[in-house]
Amino acid sequence: MKPTHTAIAGLGVTEQGKVYGKTPLGFAVEAIRLALDDAGLEKNDLDGLLVNPGMSWGQAASMASFAVQQAMGIEDVTLSASVGLGGASAGAMIMQAALAIEAGMATTVACVFSDAPLRPPKASAETGKTGGTAGAYAHAGGLEAAYGMFGVNGRYALVARRHMHEYGTTQDQLGAIAVSQRAFAQGNPAAQFRGRPLTMEDYRASRWVAEPFHLLDCCLVSNGGVAVIVTSAERAHDLRRPPVHLRGMAQGHPGGDPLETLTSGAVTAGKVALEMAGLGLSDVQFCELYDCYTFTVLVTLEDYGFCKKGEGGPFVETGHTGPGGDLPVNTGGGQLSSFYMWGMTPIAEGVLQIRGDGGERQVARHDIGLVSGNGGILSTHSTLILARSAS
Amino acid sequence: MKPTHTAIAGLGVTEQGKVYGKTPLGFAVEAIRLALDDAGLEKNDLDGLLVNPGMSWGQAASMASFAVQQAMGIEDVTLSASVGLGGASAGAMIMQAALAIEAGMATTVACVFSDAPLRPPKASAETGKTGGTAGAYAHAGGLEAAYGMFGVNGRYALVARRHMHEYGTTQDQLGAIAVSQRAFAQGNPAAQFRGRPLTMEDYRASRWVAEPFHLLDCCLVSNGGVAVIVTSAERAHDLRRPPVHLRGMAQGHPGGDPLETLTSGAVTAGKVALEMAGLGLSDVQFCELYDCYTFTVLVTLEDYGFCKKGEGGPFVETGHTGPGGDLPVNTGGGQLSSFYMWGMTPIAEGVLQIRGDGGERQVARHDIGLVSGNGGILSTHSTLILARSAS
Repeated sequence: MKPTHTAIAGLGVTEQGKVYGKTPLGFAVEAIRLALDDAGLEKNDLDGLLVNPGMSWGQAASMASFAVQQAMGIEDVTLSASVGLGGASAGAMIMQAALAIEAGMATTVACVFSDAPLRPPKASAETGKTGGTAGAYAHAGGLEAAYGMFGVNGRYALVARRHMHEYGTTQDQLGAIAVSQRAFAQGNPAAQFRGRPLTMEDYRASRWVAEPFHLLDCCLVSNGGVAVIVTSAERAHDLRRPPVHLRGMAQGHPGGDPLETLTSGAVTAGKVALEMAGLGLSDVQFCELYDCYTFTVLVTLEDYGFCKKGEGGPFVETGHTGPGGDLPVNTGGGQLSSFYMWGMTPIAEGVLQIRGDGGERQVARHDIGLVSGNGGILSTHSTLILARSAS
Repeated sequence: MKPTHTAIAGLGVTEQGKVYGKTPLGFAVEAIRLALDDAGLEKNDLDGLLVNPGMSWGQAASMASFAVQQAMGIEDVTLSASVGLGGASAGAMIMQAALAIEAGMATTVACVFSDAPLRPPKASAETGKTGGTAGAYAHAGGLEAAYGMFGVNGRYALVARRHMHEYGTTQDQLGAIAVSQRAFAQGNPAAQFRGRPLTMEDYRASRWVAEPFHLLDCCLVSNGGVAVIVTSAERAHDLRRPPVHLRGMAQGHPGGDPLETLTSGAVTAGKVALEMAGLGLSDVQFCELYDCYTFTVLVTLEDYGFCKKGEGGPFVETGHTGPGGDLPVNTGGGQLSSFYMWGMTPIAEGVLQIRGDGGERQVARHDIGLVSGNGGILSTHSTLILARSAS
C-alpha cells in the first residue's frame, strides 16, 4: 500500500462511563469540539466527517455524519459517511480519512465514535436494579439460542476455550492480561477503574459470564465519545499539538471460521501496515490492542508475531506487556479497565503516548506504536502504525 | 481532486419490486454474484466489500459488509465497511473503492445496496390491506409531528413549495419530470412501471402525499439489490465487459438550511467532479439524477448549471430531458418509475448506457454521463462522471 502523508492533529475524549442525560449525537459533538480545541481549529476548518455510530444510535446511525454536521452547523463538507465495521471501524475511518486527504478530496477530517447504551438507575426502589444497558447488544436467535448459545460472549468464549485446548493456554494467563491492564489504568485519570486495583485472586473470584470468560475478561460498557482530527502531516505541523503521524495502515479480514483457525486478521493487516511504514516488528515500542476480551489481546499478539502461535499465554504471563515490560500493551487500561469506545479507545491512548502526554502511565519509548481494531469475533481487523516522526 | 485510474467492471441487478421471501442480506449476495458473473470474476477475486444497507437491515446494518463476506465465504478481504450517507451512499462507496484501489489497499471492490422493506400481502381477508412497508421509514416526533409535520415527504414538500413561490415553478413542471421518466421506463424491462405509461392527466389525478407532491412525484419502494464491481482501469480492460471509467467524483454537503437556500450539494460536487475529469458541463451527454422526488431532479439540474437557478421548471417542461431531448435524464425511468435502490438505481442505469446496453431506451450519445446521489433533503450530495474512455 502506498504511504500517506497524514497525521492525527487533535484528540477529544468526553467524560466516560456512567454519564447520563446525553445522547449519542451529543457525545459525538462534544468529542469533536474537544478535538478541535486540542488541535487549535474551528468547526469550519473541518471538511470531512466520518462517524462510527455505537448501537444506541439506532435508526439514526445510517445518517450519523449528516446529523453531526447539522448539529454543529458545519459548512461545505466534502467527505461524509457513517462507517460500520465493528471493532475495526475506528481504524477503518482513519484509513478512509487518510486516503481522501491524500487524494485531495478533503483536508481536515473528524473521525468520531460515540455511544450511550447505559441508562441511569431507576428512581423506583421496586426493582432493586441499578440501571442496565439499552438492550442494543442483545443478539439471540434460533436453534443455537435454544442450546444456550446467544450473544457475542458465548461465541467468543468457544474460540478461547479451543485455544486453551490446542495450546495449553491457562485461565491465569487470560487473567494476567486483566491484571496488567488494570495496573496501567491506575495511572489513567480517565479510567473507569482508576482507584480500583486488581489482583489475580480478584480475577479468579469474579463471576463467570461464559466460561472461560470471567466478568473481568470482558470489556466495560461506557457512555461517551472520542474524536480525532486527521489532516496532512504538513498542516499538522502548523497546529497546536505535535503531529501523530499515520505511518502505516491496513485492514485484514481473513474470512475463515475463527473457531477453526484461532487466527485474526492481524496476520495480514500487521504485515501490510509495517511494510507501508518501512518498519519491522522490532521497531514497535508499545501496542494499543483492541480488547473486547482478554483473549483478543492474547491472539492479536500472536498474530502480529510478537510471539509464536499458541505462545500468547506464556508471553503475557511473563510480564512483557505490563507496566515496565519491554512491550507495554494497553497502557491506559484498555477497554477492560479504562473505557469502551470500540476501536477509539486504543487510538486515543496511542495518540496520548506518542505525544508523551501519558502522565503517570507514560511509556519510556514512544516513537512508534501499533494500534489495532478487531470485530466479528476474530474476523475483521485494522492496524495503524503511529509515529512521532514522519519518516 | 487527483484523478483515479479506476472503472466499473461489473453490474448486478436482482429482480426488483414486490419480490418477497428474500432477506436484505440475500439480495446483497445475489446482486454481487450477478455482478461477478457480468465481469467474469470469481468471488475470491474480490478483496473489497462496501455495503450500503437499506433500512430493513435493522441492527445488522452496522456489520453488513462482514455479513456479506461470511455469507459468500470470501477469503482475504482488505477493505470492508458498512457505509451510510442516505441517497449519496452509493456514490460515496464508489469513491471509497476508487481511492482504496488507487492507494493499493484493494484491487477489486464490490459496492452493493440492498433492501427488503416491502412485506407480502397478508393471507387473511380480515384486514383488506395488500401489504405495506416494514415501517422502517417512519420518522416522527415532537412538536413538529403535533402540527402534522412528520416524515421526509412533508419536509421535502415544504422546500418544493418554497421553490414554487420564489421562482414560479408550477405543478405541471414537476409533473413533466414524472411523465418523462415514465416514458423512459417503457423501454426498461426491469422497470416496475414498464407497461404502464403516464399522461399529465394521470399525474394531476394522482392522490396527494404532501402538497405539492402527488403520489407520482415520489419514488417507488422496492425490494432488491444492486451491486457494481470497481477495479483498476487496467484490469477492467482485461475483463468480460467494456470498462465504465470513473473519470470524476466528488461529494458536496453544503450544511445550510435547504428551505433557505433551495440549493443542493450538486453545486460543489459537480464542479469538482468535472474538473477532475477534465471536462465541462457541455461534455455531459446524459444524466442519471437521484430522484427521491421529481423536485430533486429539477433542483439538481439547476445546481449543476444545466439551467439557471429557478429555471429548472421551464427547462424540464420544454423537453430537454425526456426521450429524444438534448440532455436525456433518468433514461431507465429512474427511481420514480423503474425501481428504488437508493443511489444505486442511477449508477446502474449509467453503467448500462455507457456500455450501450440500454436496448430500447439507449441514448444516442453515451460517451460521458453524469450520475448523482442525494440525501438529507438537499443536504448530502455525490457526483460521478462515467465515461467510455479513460481520457
